[in-house]
Amino acid sequence: MNSQSGIEVYIKEQASWIERELQRSLPEGWDVPGALRESMMYSLMAGGKRLRPILVLAASDALGGDRESALPAALAVEMIHTYSLIHDDLPAMDNDDFRRGKPTNHKVYGEAMAILAGDALLTHAFYTLVQAYRKHGVAPDRIADLVEELSKLAGAPGMVGGQAADMQGEQGLTRIEELEYIHLHKTSDLIVFSLKAGGRIAGATDGQLAALEKFGACVGLAFQIQDDILDLIGDEQKLGKPVKSDLKQQKVTYPYFIGIEASRAKVAELTDEAKKAIREGGFDQPERLLQLADYLLNRDH
Amino acid sequence: MNSQSGIEVYIKEQASWIERELQRSLPEGWDVPGALRESMMYSLMAGGKRLRPILVLAASDALGGDRESALPAALAVEMIHTYSLIHDDLPAMDNDDFRRGKPTNHKVYGEAMAILAGDALLTHAFYTLVQAYRKHGVAPDRIADLVEELSKLAGAPGMVGGQAADMQGEQGLTRIEELEYIHLHKTSDLIVFSLKAGGRIAGATDGQLAALEKFGACVGLAFQIQDDILDLIGDEQKLGKPVKSDLKQQKVTYPYFIGIEASRAKVAELTDEAKKAIREGGFDQPERLLQLADYLLNRDH
Repeated sequence: MNSQSGIEVYIKEQASWIERELQRSLPEGWDVPGALRESMMYSLMAGGKRLRPILVLAASDALGGDRESALPAALAVEMIHTYSLIHDDLPAMDNDDFRRGKPTNHKVYGEAMAILAGDALLTHAFYTLVQAYRKHGVAPDRIADLVEELSKLAGAPGMVGGQAADMQGEQGLTRIEELEYIHLHKTSDLIVFSLKAGGRIAGATDGQLAALEKFGACVGLAFQIQDDILDLIGDEQKLGKPVKSDLKQQKVTYPYFIGIEASRAKVAELTDEAKKAIREGGFDQPERLLQLADYLLNRDH
Repeated sequence: MNSQSGIEVYIKEQASWIERELQRSLPEGWDVPGALRESMMYSLMAGGKRLRPILVLAASDALGGDRESALPAALAVEMIHTYSLIHDDLPAMDNDDFRRGKPTNHKVYGEAMAILAGDALLTHAFYTLVQAYRKHGVAPDRIADLVEELSKLAGAPGMVGGQAADMQGEQGLTRIEELEYIHLHKTSDLIVFSLKAGGRIAGATDGQLAALEKFGACVGLAFQIQDDILDLIGDEQKLGKPVKSDLKQQKVTYPYFIGIEASRAKVAELTDEAKKAIREGGFDQPERLLQLADYLLNRDH
């Protein structure tokens, strides 16, 4: 008997498939300096929830799409996410020594190699995305759409912009709108891309893409607020990092502005909004997306 | 009367067009944090020879291609080149305070913003490349080929790999083959991409692409050896950086291994080889490429 709920089994199965595929995502035949390859793989295989690639697959599943065709986009978003963590952890940025209970990339391979491993993973995400066309017959105009959207949502007007605003904001945010801008871009944009990529590859209509975008924006913000809450009250061992680290660094967070209880209510409200968008979006099999929203709401790490 | 040779006029005209287009390559409507936008544009507009984008255009010209269609790829390679310079100059890497006679990005905007500006430019290169399809009707399967090739030649098995090998090699190269590996990837790969991109967009045959690749590999290596020579003997003001900086940093270079005269002979030999590939490649208008090879051979900065 397995006491896990259906969605927990689903998540574990997807994460395990994604990790097997990430392991062989850098072609063995490529002549890559050993230390660079190691440094890239160290962070790529360092665990984590694999939330973004799972969302790619779940969006494809909601439309009954071909999972093999969705896989390259799933791997690509995890590469983008991983590179952003490597660079965020650098001494010049957040200066973190540990991530998911393991030494950060630059603590193991040095700063220069960590910068290069991040650059290489970011670049390799685009190579990987194109393999949906090269190996799985996804139409090339759809690939062009995906490359364009990924480069926007992960770039200056997206994730990197959110990170830049976060860096500047450490000198003191004064309005919750500034915090929402940071969360929207730093976290939600890549989550939105993940959902739309899975949808696009499975042939989503414009209406379905809009529903996936809404779902992603709500889930992304809820996820980040939940992180802020867990960072204040969560269990150190489950999180794999010291709790209250944001407070120690005097980072301004959602709970800081509106308190823990109102933050919790906001997470619940955003989760409802996300589910509503999917329920009304005309998906054949919306269950996994709906369950994922609830799962993220109730997580304790 | 203009005393400049035809190729010098050509280079100036192309560089000036490229700079106008780079200036507006980050859409104004995009909500990008001010400091990030400034930091990106500071390095993108900091001058330089614009060699790589000119090679994109010259390859297109050799086939009588549409120059507007080739422009996005030209801008993209300059963004990749610029991001690589920003990251290479960082304290954890080469720790350079000046580049082209101006303070390096991190000296002006700080290390964190310099890392992010590099990340954003790298990401934006892919957005820009796709605009050849979005705005100029280049076929999407050709765009998929270009994205795949750029991500490979600029990534772990290409430019970033060359940079990683260079970092590790600073502990002491013992064989010229190691140096050639570094030059091939750190410099030639992006030059090869530039030529093939211009060719692909203009509809080059496989044979023409092979000739452009050969030309790029030879010119790229010649360019790097010439840089090593100029760094030893060149004029400080013309170069915009202190001469002998490689020697001061105990960098192992081509002249270090085989001496100045043999290095000069090697540059001449590679230039001949490059021109031969183009002459025999079946191009309608090969003149600009041939002249560019000679121009690069004879440059003093």
